[in-house]
Amino acid sequence: MAKRVAVILSGCGVYDGTEVHEASAVLVHLSRAGAKVQMFAPNTEQMHVVNHCEGKPTEEKRNVLQESARIARGDVTDLAKLEVSAFDAIIIPGGFGVAKNLSDWAVKNKDCTVQPHLEKLLKDFHKAGKPMGMCCISPVLAAKILPGCELTVGQDKECEKWPYAQTAGAMKEMGCKHVNTDVEKAHVDVKNKLVTTSAFMCNAPIHNVFDGIGVMVKETLKLA
Amino acid sequence: MAKRVAVILSGCGVYDGTEVHEASAVLVHLSRAGAKVQMFAPNTEQMHVVNHCEGKPTEEKRNVLQESARIARGDVTDLAKLEVSAFDAIIIPGGFGVAKNLSDWAVKNKDCTVQPHLEKLLKDFHKAGKPMGMCCISPVLAAKILPGCELTVGQDKECEKWPYAQTAGAMKEMGCKHVNTDVEKAHVDVKNKLVTTSAFMCNAPIHNVFDGIGVMVKETLKLA
Repeated sequence: MAKRVAVILSGCGVYDGTEVHEASAVLVHLSRAGAKVQMFAPNTEQMHVVNHCEGKPTEEKRNVLQESARIARGDVTDLAKLEVSAFDAIIIPGGFGVAKNLSDWAVKNKDCTVQPHLEKLLKDFHKAGKPMGMCCISPVLAAKILPGCELTVGQDKECEKWPYAQTAGAMKEMGCKHVNTDVEKAHVDVKNKLVTTSAFMCNAPIHNVFDGIGVMVKETLKLA
Repeated sequence: MAKRVAVILSGCGVYDGTEVHEASAVLVHLSRAGAKVQMFAPNTEQMHVVNHCEGKPTEEKRNVLQESARIARGDVTDLAKLEVSAFDAIIIPGGFGVAKNLSDWAVKNKDCTVQPHLEKLLKDFHKAGKPMGMCCISPVLAAKILPGCELTVGQDKECEKWPYAQTAGAMKEMGCKHVNTDVEKAHVDVKNKLVTTSAFMCNAPIHNVFDGIGVMVKETLKLA
């Protein structure tokens, strides 16, 4: 039987939505594994619309669901309609959309809250023993919802290759066990059925990011 | 020496810009092959902004370069600055942006014109004996600029798997030799150094599209 996987999007573009290459890698690896995929996104306004040439917010307004549909080629469902019973696993690609539209991590860091409906869904997936795959910044959602979980956002020492390594410190302050993990690999928290990989938290060639996401997808499906 | 490849974007989203998964696949395969990539897009207004949930144009205005930067993670250059001498090859992913922002194929079909600056660039790449890789709908640019070239947009008989097969007929009417080619493969016109693959012209699982683009990238680099 094909594994049924919900993929959660948060817009379209690294600085205000889902990182498009992470989403694309998730979909390619799920497709190759024969999984049945449905994409979801909240039907809400984006926190920001960022001019991606300049990296600065504009005055525009955009809707998270509509922009996510750019990645989903139109086939995306309102997150409010996600039924946990209809899926074997959930995967959340990264991008600032996770920190702006699915939570307020971008503003409040470790004091953030997760969008309430998504928080309930993630807790329900966890309670039902269904695995969660996350990459890049999206493991902060797990850090908030599953205190004490094991996860990775890459490495905990800042350098050119790991420009966002301070996030690992924040994970520890939130009570998680952060496991340094290279970009082509993923960390599996067997107890919590949580699979994480650093993706673009690492300043790595895109094929390394693609491969790490491949491991994350494979390990998530194994647990499903 | 690393091959230097210019990748031409036309926005961000299948219905009004570059198809994001085709662009992502191009970048993953180029990265794995060790190519040096620079992305370009025209600094012009999009022909349309399409609500990708509904498939309908809205009243919004967006800039092709700025939206392309969502795929390029900010690192995209104005197409006006592309110097042919600085590159060994050019690759153009598909999406309606090719038919709306890089040409007017979406409106005029085989009577279309290519955006004049891009037309000159493609002719210069061709004159210099530098290969061009194209996928999905972007081979229409080659059909217009290189009369009599060999190319593929997939299959020429319409069915559920090939919903846009009439494009192959248009290619023939424009004087090209259309070569039916499966989605995981690419066609090489050795004489014109033109490599084409159908990508999302085929209603295929995304990993098949990814693999076909991999062949297109590999064959393009071989000719460079």
